[in-house]
Amino acid sequence: MSPSLSPSRPSVLLTLPVFAISRLGRIANEKVRAVFSQEGLSWRGHFILVCLKEHGELSQRELADLASLDPSDLVKVLDVLEDTGLVQRRPDPRDRRRHVLSITDDGQDVCLRGEELIRTVTTDLLAPLGADRQAALHELVTTIIDAHTTIDGDRRPRPGWRRTTHEE
Amino acid sequence: MSPSLSPSRPSVLLTLPVFAISRLGRIANEKVRAVFSQEGLSWRGHFILVCLKEHGELSQRELADLASLDPSDLVKVLDVLEDTGLVQRRPDPRDRRRHVLSITDDGQDVCLRGEELIRTVTTDLLAPLGADRQAALHELVTTIIDAHTTIDGDRRPRPGWRRTTHEE
Repeated sequence: MSPSLSPSRPSVLLTLPVFAISRLGRIANEKVRAVFSQEGLSWRGHFILVCLKEHGELSQRELADLASLDPSDLVKVLDVLEDTGLVQRRPDPRDRRRHVLSITDDGQDVCLRGEELIRTVTTDLLAPLGADRQAALHELVTTIIDAHTTIDGDRRPRPGWRRTTHEE
Repeated sequence: MSPSLSPSRPSVLLTLPVFAISRLGRIANEKVRAVFSQEGLSWRGHFILVCLKEHGELSQRELADLASLDPSDLVKVLDVLEDTGLVQRRPDPRDRRRHVLSITDDGQDVCLRGEELIRTVTTDLLAPLGADRQAALHELVTTIIDAHTTIDGDRRPRPGWRRTTHEE
């Protein structure tokens, strides 16, 4: 114990990589949330729009996987996106008891604005690093995610994450 | 739109560094939570114990800052730590309306076990990277956290994060 240490000193917890990684994730979340809420936009909604723009029609389950959202959170986000006309829902031709979601033209416009906001946050978040170190961080992060992500419940990592710099 | 893309493909969102960083933070959280709950231990409680072990007596506010916990979450965690005899609370000599917390001998023992669990999670989480890349990741992550962390409300970064490898 070191009772004389000032609590304004950096937290010993940051010497733990798992804590530091978790903390950085929270900082990123907070910055994204702040920038989107300033414009009355939903950052989680944006991630949904990006997935639908990329993949076309998706089921709720597929969306939850791609966007790493809890299904219950997803439902709330989707309700807002549908009410505001950014996403449309129709019966899934593969299973009429389910629905598939797709992005509307208005959704495409909002998605473009969201992409600008994400670029702003990314520039801010990663500013302490030069371009090479930004790319190195992204590569290290996606390497770990890749290795810990399963397909269809088995332990094989998904092949071929597309890695890009934050510029894209 | 690419309706023919299978949703089992990796998410386009991982090409966004802010999303990937957030996702990795969640993976780290989930792994820590799982390992601690298997032993009936609290992972957030562990981070509190680590701070108290390092700094001695701390106020709730100081603890919330160091452990990056919401004050309301902190209160719940502290109640459990106090009820189970791992942490003790006494009036703050600097302000009798407040309390300071410190770790007990039982808390020290539980903290040691928690440190073992954190080492296990760290080894698992970072296994996809060699030692050099693990250290590089930790350095990159703490560099960003450092730059985005304020002291006393101003924008100066806190000096001197201690950076170590995950082995420590």
